[in-house]
Amino acid sequence: MENGGETKEWRFKGNQTLTTASGFTVRGVLNMLMENLNPDDQRQVLRLGHGDPSSFPCFYTSPAAEDAIVDALRSRQFNCYSSTVGILPARKAVAEYLSRHLPYTLTPDDVFLTIGCTHAIEVALSVLTYPGANILLPCPGFPYYEAFSAYIGLQHRHFSLLPEKGWEVDLDAVEALADENTVAMVLINPGNPCGNVFTYKHLQKVAETAKKLGILVIADEVYEHLTFGKNPFVPMGAFGNITPIITLGSISKRWIVPGWRLGWLVTTDNQGILQKSGLVESIKSFLNISSDPATFIQGALPQIIEKTNEDFFSKIINTLCLDANLCYEKLKEIPCITCPSKPEGSMFVMAKLDLSLLRDIQDDLDFCLKLAKEENMAILPGVAVGMKNWLRITFALEPLALEEGLERLKAFCQRHGD
Amino acid sequence: MENGGETKEWRFKGNQTLTTASGFTVRGVLNMLMENLNPDDQRQVLRLGHGDPSSFPCFYTSPAAEDAIVDALRSRQFNCYSSTVGILPARKAVAEYLSRHLPYTLTPDDVFLTIGCTHAIEVALSVLTYPGANILLPCPGFPYYEAFSAYIGLQHRHFSLLPEKGWEVDLDAVEALADENTVAMVLINPGNPCGNVFTYKHLQKVAETAKKLGILVIADEVYEHLTFGKNPFVPMGAFGNITPIITLGSISKRWIVPGWRLGWLVTTDNQGILQKSGLVESIKSFLNISSDPATFIQGALPQIIEKTNEDFFSKIINTLCLDANLCYEKLKEIPCITCPSKPEGSMFVMAKLDLSLLRDIQDDLDFCLKLAKEENMAILPGVAVGMKNWLRITFALEPLALEEGLERLKAFCQRHGD
Repeated sequence: MENGGETKEWRFKGNQTLTTASGFTVRGVLNMLMENLNPDDQRQVLRLGHGDPSSFPCFYTSPAAEDAIVDALRSRQFNCYSSTVGILPARKAVAEYLSRHLPYTLTPDDVFLTIGCTHAIEVALSVLTYPGANILLPCPGFPYYEAFSAYIGLQHRHFSLLPEKGWEVDLDAVEALADENTVAMVLINPGNPCGNVFTYKHLQKVAETAKKLGILVIADEVYEHLTFGKNPFVPMGAFGNITPIITLGSISKRWIVPGWRLGWLVTTDNQGILQKSGLVESIKSFLNISSDPATFIQGALPQIIEKTNEDFFSKIINTLCLDANLCYEKLKEIPCITCPSKPEGSMFVMAKLDLSLLRDIQDDLDFCLKLAKEENMAILPGVAVGMKNWLRITFALEPLALEEGLERLKAFCQRHGD
Repeated sequence: MENGGETKEWRFKGNQTLTTASGFTVRGVLNMLMENLNPDDQRQVLRLGHGDPSSFPCFYTSPAAEDAIVDALRSRQFNCYSSTVGILPARKAVAEYLSRHLPYTLTPDDVFLTIGCTHAIEVALSVLTYPGANILLPCPGFPYYEAFSAYIGLQHRHFSLLPEKGWEVDLDAVEALADENTVAMVLINPGNPCGNVFTYKHLQKVAETAKKLGILVIADEVYEHLTFGKNPFVPMGAFGNITPIITLGSISKRWIVPGWRLGWLVTTDNQGILQKSGLVESIKSFLNISSDPATFIQGALPQIIEKTNEDFFSKIINTLCLDANLCYEKLKEIPCITCPSKPEGSMFVMAKLDLSLLRDIQDDLDFCLKLAKEENMAILPGVAVGMKNWLRITFALEPLALEEGLERLKAFCQRHGD
């Protein structure tokens, strides 16, 4: 078939590193579950697998935030390219917003705007990488860190979050894992996937450990202020006097607009260590060869922050708190599932499967695949976040939908119970 | 100073690869020029250095496009995460839009949405990279290709665009440069920085050369349909029956909204070669570990395409045509500057400096730095796009502003003339 060119040798080929790296992500696993749904099931698909409740009316974003976008768009001042680090008024707004909860004042120069928190993670990991470098990641954690590290060739090592200690960091493990090529450790607070909120005291210990090891703390605070338990949210940046901190965040979760793709990377560098080490320069260089968040969404940010009132935040927190209680209580009714602690933040809880109480389930992935098929719903298998035979359950749904999801889960477990 | 921790050894450091790669970009050079402006100069800063006329009223985007964004936002259906490849209605709209000018019909599966064309370039280069691979880039060209290739370790080789042949590709050079590790060649049409528009016949020869060499054509068509000379715009995808094509594009230029960050990567793969080679899978994998364009901007895309009327496009083309003529005629009045041909597309023209007619100018960079300081205006030195002692001049400005810019340029040249 010389004419068709089918026997021709082409010199390009797919990039295997990408295929391997991308296998790790939550998105990848959820896509697999979605493909496993039964198309004949007429019931609503219930998504207890991902942290995006934006489609439920009770989680609609603040009208003030929408208005801010419309105003920025209609002004026609923000159709232009952004500066590489983000436009100044937006960086200023983030600096002031975060400074409210810090013992010192950030400046716009500490703030770099990113295309959601995903891009902020990409920036942080990319600037820290060199051949042989490694990073310490929490287990369970958010698998995008593993995926992106694998892609750029940054080695990773896992430290445990301890379920019996309210998912605190195993700091002894952190010390044991770190070596001369360890550049940073990642901490996600409020916790994804555990739904925990770290105390001031524990965060201080983390900072002291990092200082001792000479490593950076990457504080993933994308769920900032989404707390509804005994521990208030304390930003890791509060310990910037101990050790340099890179804080990652976005409006995705607190404003329930993950599709708006506006986040930030913020340096808390009281001693100028990040500046001196060349990391700040590398961040700018990376952003120079990277795309930007949409300019008019940046342009809207000062107004989004200024005009969103406390009522909106309270309403969201109240719903999440109701959801967390509902989830925790309902899960108690299912013998083969155990939550080590009630979630107090974020949108997730980790729950342990007892396979010995299930007749025909091999592991967590098998559980979630069968659940998807039989009950038209998604729950993330723990293996996707580093804990085999656990489940990561999202409780951030409209409460009636959550309740139905938990009923379906219960029915499924009963049907497969011993 | 043990207390301050200043003598402490930290284990992280900046990423030198990034700093080196990022030095190449247009953004980087323009930032340098901007820092060189005279703060005491009260005249308007005139930006003849970059392709973004969005702030001039005569280049304001179509109200229909703005309305589409507002409608998508207010619908509250697009605050959610996007799928990794982009939401289906938007991919469908791009497939239909591009198919209008192709001899066959693209499907949504051929379309991948990206965060502007920058991100599309990032995807294309990343999926093609393997250790030792090289890519053929046009000179002059768009330096983001060199910068991003350097960052990911993809080697590049330059083929010339020939000023004496209306900036056609030196296809003999392409053949001579390619070896068994060459994966692709890049073609920018309409041309950045040359303002040329390739003929159907020349594009066909490019496709045939690529087929002969077994390499992919990456067709950067971000300036698609912005043509106002003798050659109509012909999409490279029209030659997908000869060789596989990856087309990169966005709404940034035709709709004059570079800040909206919505672009696409489209495969034209009539023989299924990209599929078989694993490239399509790699594109999906890359997008799986990458951020997405804002969902509501994706959501607006079908309406943006459908509702923008021809009057808007004609008005933009008329202004660009006027600008191109003005620029070409005015430059003729400046003895030390020569344009090999009148621009017929995009927003740029390349002009050659005759340094022998200038008293105290060392090279193009020196020219542009002094011009910035003395005339409060930016022109990109040719060295930034690969042609030392040339200039890349943007004519896409409000015509009166362009005229003033060219007057300033003329005055500068007279002042520094022999």
